[in-house]
Amino acid sequence: GAGAVAEEKELRQRFMAPPVSGLRELRRRRRELRSRMELLIMETQAEMCRALADLDPGASFAIDSWERKEGGGGISCVLQDGEVFEKAGVNVSVVSGLLSEEAARQMRSRGKSLKAKDGKLPFCAMGVSSVIHPKNPHVPTMHFNYRYFEIEEADGTKQWWFGGGTDLTPTYLNEEDAIHFHKTLKEACDKHDLKLYPKYKKWCDDYFYIKHRGERRGIGGIFFDDMNSPSKEEVFQFVKSCAKAVVPCYIPIVKKHCHDSFTPEEKLWQQLRRGRYVEFNLLYDRGTKFGLLTPGSRIESILMSLPLTARWEYMHNPPESSKEAEILEVLRNPKDWVH
Amino acid sequence: GAGAVAEEKELRQRFMAPPVSGLRELRRRRRELRSRMELLIMETQAEMCRALADLDPGASFAIDSWERKEGGGGISCVLQDGEVFEKAGVNVSVVSGLLSEEAARQMRSRGKSLKAKDGKLPFCAMGVSSVIHPKNPHVPTMHFNYRYFEIEEADGTKQWWFGGGTDLTPTYLNEEDAIHFHKTLKEACDKHDLKLYPKYKKWCDDYFYIKHRGERRGIGGIFFDDMNSPSKEEVFQFVKSCAKAVVPCYIPIVKKHCHDSFTPEEKLWQQLRRGRYVEFNLLYDRGTKFGLLTPGSRIESILMSLPLTARWEYMHNPPESSKEAEILEVLRNPKDWVH
Repeated sequence: GAGAVAEEKELRQRFMAPPVSGLRELRRRRRELRSRMELLIMETQAEMCRALADLDPGASFAIDSWERKEGGGGISCVLQDGEVFEKAGVNVSVVSGLLSEEAARQMRSRGKSLKAKDGKLPFCAMGVSSVIHPKNPHVPTMHFNYRYFEIEEADGTKQWWFGGGTDLTPTYLNEEDAIHFHKTLKEACDKHDLKLYPKYKKWCDDYFYIKHRGERRGIGGIFFDDMNSPSKEEVFQFVKSCAKAVVPCYIPIVKKHCHDSFTPEEKLWQQLRRGRYVEFNLLYDRGTKFGLLTPGSRIESILMSLPLTARWEYMHNPPESSKEAEILEVLRNPKDWVH
Repeated sequence: GAGAVAEEKELRQRFMAPPVSGLRELRRRRRELRSRMELLIMETQAEMCRALADLDPGASFAIDSWERKEGGGGISCVLQDGEVFEKAGVNVSVVSGLLSEEAARQMRSRGKSLKAKDGKLPFCAMGVSSVIHPKNPHVPTMHFNYRYFEIEEADGTKQWWFGGGTDLTPTYLNEEDAIHFHKTLKEACDKHDLKLYPKYKKWCDDYFYIKHRGERRGIGGIFFDDMNSPSKEEVFQFVKSCAKAVVPCYIPIVKKHCHDSFTPEEKLWQQLRRGRYVEFNLLYDRGTKFGLLTPGSRIESILMSLPLTARWEYMHNPPESSKEAEILEVLRNPKDWVH
């Protein structure tokens, strides 16, 4: 009826595209956590995309809704080669089906006991993930991802967990920005449990480690996985606080620096750091590996995290006491930015 | 005495730097296969570097001799940002020590039974490897690698094998070049056994497969591993023929095209193909993984295979019947270039 039409119109304005599970279905199951999480990731995507479009009004957003033949689908929003952003992608995916052997092995290696029925593990995974690569070397790259996972075991019990995080990768260190970023994340965490920020800050430094370089990818933020206590509701509320903190964490930093002047040498250093970003994502990132291992996954949405351009120079070593050496020092020895 | 001085001088002229094992030692053990292989990889490095320097006379070669504290070392020669070459690296390494757990696991997964003594597996690995990324998009990228491996098992028996290959990655298809490249490799193989070229041509197409893209990295060549029959001497002679074919395979193609004119669009397509090259090397290449897993390995020498610059565009799809679509078709469905 007219009510349904009005509601559909309203939801279309709220989101970048119609949700994967359908508006009617989400409405019908509005109390279920799966539905609430899908609405949260859709809202987070729309908030970030609107903030990016406001900062880069000339650039156009490609919005692609895609289906996965094995079950589910997603919505990818990508802004490319704008005035402010080199490449900015915000992706939502809601997929279900049977876990691949490889993916199950990866999870078991993290200590999960997954009892399969005839080798089959039905799963449902949903999340929002985003990587923003700006043009100006004084504006840092930012990444965030919030996700929910359910697996049904042989005896019918469901394992569930949340994971996610938000982290910053500057080309040059700006202490004020680093403090603002970490402080905003800490405030989101502290509302739930004072132990969370220190724990997840450390996990972030440990996770985004480029082992063969002895460097972190960036100056960190928070990272967590396999979070399933104290309760589904409480973890969801925590994830919601983190997701709502993404725009206030990052957008003020973009606004502050997107008109800063820069030299060709600064642009070059940015490109070399982009190369390190690629190394981390292709060699170590669990999300990228999980995506590439999942049959029928959408490669373009997974690899939209890669920068538009990157550079590798043989034996590039910045001079001592340079601004380049300053950020390297922090990547080698992470600092605490808030107490 | 005077003889030794003269010999040292001669060898210094023959090679890019003094060999890892030392001239005296190589001379003393001149009949051992290890020494003959080390001389072959040193000669191959010097031949390729001289050919590159002749084509790009203004560019300077960085020559770095390095030691590995766990045993052995190597010599890396890199030409960067020249007139003809964007980045060209030719690396020799001769390393020994104890195999890491990770590396042993990787080998066992290939079907090797490695019986360790107290968990320890002494090994010796040597090889020459090279990746040449030219500036002009009409000059293809080339890669080759020839290597020898020995592992000592618990009961003192030694497992040994050779591996290697040479392959071409063009930005655009040139059939004449593809035929010349494959024909030169086939002639090198045919001198030893007519079965080798067809077998190793297919292995190359299978190995350089970018699974998530459904594409090969390039138009192939030859690739082999774990080769240990009919005899050590015969396999060495085969590897020698392949190594001697590298310059005649590739250098005529560079000479033919290095002054071809090109458009900005052709340069862009080259950069996108460079991105695929990075994807293969970081996600799938066994040599890169083995290198990064080997404690004390020299990261700069392993990652010199990465191009100076690369590009990733979201949803880039070349138009039908374009030159870009033509090469993609061959990367998706490899062709036989010689019969």
